[in-house]
Amino acid sequence: MLPKGFQYAGVHAGLKDSGKKDMGLIVSEKKAVCAGVTTTNLACASCVKRNRKILRRGTAKTIIVNTKYANACTGKQGDKDDAEYAKIAEKLFGGPALTASTGVIGQNLPMDKIKKGAELLQKNLKHDYDDFAEAILTTDLVVKKITKTIHLLGRDVTICGTAKGSGMIHPNMATMLAFITTDASINHSLLQRVIREVTAISFNQVTVDGDTSTNDMCLCLANGMSGVRIDRQTLPVFQAALTEVLIYLAKAIAADGEGATKLMEVNVTGARSLKEARLAAKAVVGSPLVKCAVYGGDDNWGRVIAAVGRSGAKFDPEKVKMNWDGLQSKTVTINIDLASGRESAQAWGCDLTEGYVRINTNYN
Amino acid sequence: MLPKGFQYAGVHAGLKDSGKKDMGLIVSEKKAVCAGVTTTNLACASCVKRNRKILRRGTAKTIIVNTKYANACTGKQGDKDDAEYAKIAEKLFGGPALTASTGVIGQNLPMDKIKKGAELLQKNLKHDYDDFAEAILTTDLVVKKITKTIHLLGRDVTICGTAKGSGMIHPNMATMLAFITTDASINHSLLQRVIREVTAISFNQVTVDGDTSTNDMCLCLANGMSGVRIDRQTLPVFQAALTEVLIYLAKAIAADGEGATKLMEVNVTGARSLKEARLAAKAVVGSPLVKCAVYGGDDNWGRVIAAVGRSGAKFDPEKVKMNWDGLQSKTVTINIDLASGRESAQAWGCDLTEGYVRINTNYN
Repeated sequence: MLPKGFQYAGVHAGLKDSGKKDMGLIVSEKKAVCAGVTTTNLACASCVKRNRKILRRGTAKTIIVNTKYANACTGKQGDKDDAEYAKIAEKLFGGPALTASTGVIGQNLPMDKIKKGAELLQKNLKHDYDDFAEAILTTDLVVKKITKTIHLLGRDVTICGTAKGSGMIHPNMATMLAFITTDASINHSLLQRVIREVTAISFNQVTVDGDTSTNDMCLCLANGMSGVRIDRQTLPVFQAALTEVLIYLAKAIAADGEGATKLMEVNVTGARSLKEARLAAKAVVGSPLVKCAVYGGDDNWGRVIAAVGRSGAKFDPEKVKMNWDGLQSKTVTINIDLASGRESAQAWGCDLTEGYVRINTNYN
Repeated sequence: MLPKGFQYAGVHAGLKDSGKKDMGLIVSEKKAVCAGVTTTNLACASCVKRNRKILRRGTAKTIIVNTKYANACTGKQGDKDDAEYAKIAEKLFGGPALTASTGVIGQNLPMDKIKKGAELLQKNLKHDYDDFAEAILTTDLVVKKITKTIHLLGRDVTICGTAKGSGMIHPNMATMLAFITTDASINHSLLQRVIREVTAISFNQVTVDGDTSTNDMCLCLANGMSGVRIDRQTLPVFQAALTEVLIYLAKAIAADGEGATKLMEVNVTGARSLKEARLAAKAVVGSPLVKCAVYGGDDNWGRVIAAVGRSGAKFDPEKVKMNWDGLQSKTVTINIDLASGRESAQAWGCDLTEGYVRINTNYN
């Protein structure tokens, strides 16, 4: 089931030479409350800068996405193109429109193709998000999508999530785009708080290569059309469902990291603080040496302890315990008990392979 | 020319299966002033913990080194073995003895072989550091050594440096060992200050893979046998020479990073502060995506700007300038002008290749 009152589209607009879908669209029937988290990279893309203003105001109707061109580090022309991009979308589908570009940095958007792509999207709008989920991919190998329906006050509330990941993924958002739509009714400040909290324990705990992109965003539209209000009473169930959706997407992104053959899940327990638990988990999942050991199915636990040791988390190296689970399988779990406190955290990543190097040596 | 009053040795003690040299020794004729910088990794090796005490006291006569076994994360037995290791060296060569182990984490030192190795080292001591420089290597492909003689107050002062590098190299010392000997006469606190300052702009600006090892150290012995006192007047020339030695070794380590085919040198200018200049240079040199672009000789400058953007350095993305030099050659220089201030910094690293992955997937 998809959330009520949203339509989606995905088309090939001629941006990618491969002929694959390269532009996507989400339109809410009514203006929706919007919230989101954007990259912490100082050199952020034009779309990120403009979206931030819309996210502060808290209302949007449309999200339009293109791949191949990141429209980052493109100066004033980039900002101008992005503004025109939004105008095209607002004219066709209603505004405010959030824009999301991903791809190569430093090349200007081909505005003619973008305009024709937007018109093509209009013709392909439907109450089905498969084409959209496909259209937002770049070097991803698999589509990442999930829906989750919960029952609140006798009605259905649905959350739909799609994401793209692959290279340049790191805590604090990377060339990672996630689009969440829901028919829940929720006010702007609460939605913003929930998205921030859930992003912290999902997307921000994923790392593929430690790089953080100029374009990363997690955007959420909530149009209220389920008629169910999210308040103090209904929040726990809604937030749990949203967490399930975002963690599913986070793991899907990690498993589909560039060149990845295995998903790594790191569980840190016994940390002195939540911050230290998160740091430790991320350090392990991000260590190139651990990632190579996982690739080789090699029980080199010293690399795990060395990674935790440099993470900033405090613990007694004599007391720390760790074990691997599934070192020879597609999902490798690393459990680390720091034996220093009561806090825990999870992080996700993938192995480091020759494939990662090959993909990133000749990317255009 | 080598510094007066030092002897060196390097032998095969049966630690490495390959038959290559695996233990090294430096002995000063007289007790020397010692200074050093050690890993910031919380899970540090037994030798690091014991050496720190000696470095605080400030005098040493011997440095003994072994490869293949890092003696890190080996618990109380590791500490006991390391203490015995030092005693063996002190009995044969005089103390205090600094110990330095490098290799696989979590395996105990084979003390019988270590003891026989120390005896073999005694038979091979000479006023020549070639065998020593060879004996400290692990996955390094080339020996890293340099001597530098300066003329001060009518006499010669010589500084000799050797290092090992390769994987797990990152700012704040990694499986990087550097051994500096000099016949300068210098007091402990001044030597410690100079080593700290010079390490900050050399070894701590090198990154191969972002991992920081449990065993890294830069150790320096100064035995005073040149008869030249380093004081306010002679310090600038001495410090400049030491800087030349350490930067030479830092670049040699970067160029010989695991799987590396190219040396990367990043020059950041126009930063608001020294700290931001260093952060920016290290972020670029450590970015897997930049490293892959360098490997492929691919002018993907957006990746450089994205790396600077997430480094923590503040700048105006519209004003930043960058250029590559030698993208198709063995040394690639990346110049970045942040146009935001007057501070500058350098950092060194290498490209990321399939070779790195291969080496670290099956390392024993």
